[in-house]
Amino acid sequence: MLQNDLILRAARGEEVERIPVWLMRQAGRILPEYREVRAKAKNFIEFVKNPEMAAEVTIQPVDILGVDAAIIFSDILVIPEAMGLPYQMIESKGPHFEKTIQTANDIDELHISSGEELKYVTDAITLAKKGLNGRVPLIGFCGAPWTLFAYMVEGSGSKTFSKAKKFLYTHPDLSHKLLEKIALSSINYLKAQIAAGADMLQIFDSWAGVLGKEQYLEFSLKYISMICDGIGQQVPVTVFAKDAHFAIGDIAKLKCNTIGLDWTMDPQVCRTLAGNKTLQGNADPCMLYADEKTIETEAKKMIAAFGKQRYIANLGHGLYPDTDKNKVKYFVDCIRGL
Amino acid sequence: MLQNDLILRAARGEEVERIPVWLMRQAGRILPEYREVRAKAKNFIEFVKNPEMAAEVTIQPVDILGVDAAIIFSDILVIPEAMGLPYQMIESKGPHFEKTIQTANDIDELHISSGEELKYVTDAITLAKKGLNGRVPLIGFCGAPWTLFAYMVEGSGSKTFSKAKKFLYTHPDLSHKLLEKIALSSINYLKAQIAAGADMLQIFDSWAGVLGKEQYLEFSLKYISMICDGIGQQVPVTVFAKDAHFAIGDIAKLKCNTIGLDWTMDPQVCRTLAGNKTLQGNADPCMLYADEKTIETEAKKMIAAFGKQRYIANLGHGLYPDTDKNKVKYFVDCIRGL
Repeated sequence: MLQNDLILRAARGEEVERIPVWLMRQAGRILPEYREVRAKAKNFIEFVKNPEMAAEVTIQPVDILGVDAAIIFSDILVIPEAMGLPYQMIESKGPHFEKTIQTANDIDELHISSGEELKYVTDAITLAKKGLNGRVPLIGFCGAPWTLFAYMVEGSGSKTFSKAKKFLYTHPDLSHKLLEKIALSSINYLKAQIAAGADMLQIFDSWAGVLGKEQYLEFSLKYISMICDGIGQQVPVTVFAKDAHFAIGDIAKLKCNTIGLDWTMDPQVCRTLAGNKTLQGNADPCMLYADEKTIETEAKKMIAAFGKQRYIANLGHGLYPDTDKNKVKYFVDCIRGL
Repeated sequence: MLQNDLILRAARGEEVERIPVWLMRQAGRILPEYREVRAKAKNFIEFVKNPEMAAEVTIQPVDILGVDAAIIFSDILVIPEAMGLPYQMIESKGPHFEKTIQTANDIDELHISSGEELKYVTDAITLAKKGLNGRVPLIGFCGAPWTLFAYMVEGSGSKTFSKAKKFLYTHPDLSHKLLEKIALSSINYLKAQIAAGADMLQIFDSWAGVLGKEQYLEFSLKYISMICDGIGQQVPVTVFAKDAHFAIGDIAKLKCNTIGLDWTMDPQVCRTLAGNKTLQGNADPCMLYADEKTIETEAKKMIAAFGKQRYIANLGHGLYPDTDKNKVKYFVDCIRGL
């Protein structure tokens, strides 16, 4: 039994007595306690693959920041790896795939993950659930198929993802084949996360914003929809498509509960577009560089704009690594009304 | 006298018999003829500072692609340099400022450009006008103050521009001081471009999309507005704020004629938001990787959505370097109805 199920009730549209709050990228980076654990692993991939370490840093922000949910510490690119496409995380540069997807044969060689290859994540979930001991819900997650596709074809991060988009334009059929394989893998993966104890799920479409609306509906939302349908409605699901201002109304039609918003989105406009879905977001992570007075003002403005019900307070993107942990805690406290 | 003034008439909202078309970044990159001239210069900065070379590559796309306007070949970062903050262009990496703006003193040390330091640009405009010989109008341009500020504080390109945004949050007064200096320099610069023969101007706010609406209005649009007011309404002005989906209605209130749109923007929605302004855009540059049939379909869809009047066909961002010149020409021909 959960002692604090605010976020689950907010996601389901049930009444809450206080706005729940958590922060994307809360598990890590800004916390010295995280960096201490991180230092014990040889590299990022090894860190992600270690269930004990992953569970430990998952729980840290609950104790340190007082957030209303934990999110399992992992990486969206574990799915490509489980499908047979390994990657490296290069310090201060980001992910890098030595081999990328370029041909039909490359796609044929990938297999659909059963979720079994990702036992290190589900083990971490089991451990984290044990460590949390019902204090707050645990969020599981995966990357949206388009975002994973973008990395798998491009080979690394990019401002434009023009290589990945070129593949959509020049090989639409192959693109669909790859996206479907990713989506099916993600369904198995998320089902395994639920079985391991995840109380809620979030699908991250980090590179939604590089696509126009038509391409977004065809190559991204279709597969997010497939995932939402595929996992059933066992636990609440959040879809966060960064910079997809053009797709909020379409996301609202999915079998999901919550829509994540970045800081360029207007709360009132989104309320109209999102129907009865719960909204999550959307403070600018850079705002946490400001002084406490500004943070308080902005936090109050945000919660006034979204209202208390059907709302989960969060940032509009992950925390930046050089954010002062005390400022982050101050923000969380402001939302909690402390 | 101009033989083809379609784009000027479209910008002013006058009737046109055919939709005018030009392409952002048309001067360069994709053309072997450009790369031939470029190879003669020691580096990018020297190339930009050579009026003969700049004029030559400015005219090339008019001859080769058949576009309805030339845009002076230059770089938005000539303004920081003219103000006392030099930069380098690092091949396949982008701009780099060795010294960045961090303190009040750094800002005090910058001077407001009179436009005189940028004589190499106005000389290039004079030469290009001569070479064009009235065939099509010549567009001048500058970067929006916020976009220049972002580079000057951050020191290079960035996905988040979190250092530049941090400066806005931690030093709002200094930010305004720097933005005003950039805006005043830009007014002088654009006035000099008009005096040299520019028939039309475009203000590029390439990093508009990293700001939320409130910050955008305070730190970016205010200074674009200052520039629009400062240069008077001598020639048509286009404001292109990439990814600023939240600000189209506010841009429509400026003393500008045309609003540039990226490919995430819906033409019909923008028609409503933009009142009687002319719209420019908004094909995805990646679309030019597709086959000719797709390019034709997309071009037709785009012009059908925008309509023939108060519209200038273009991309939603600059051409990517590896685009096939024949595909680009095919796109231009489709718009021109050839």
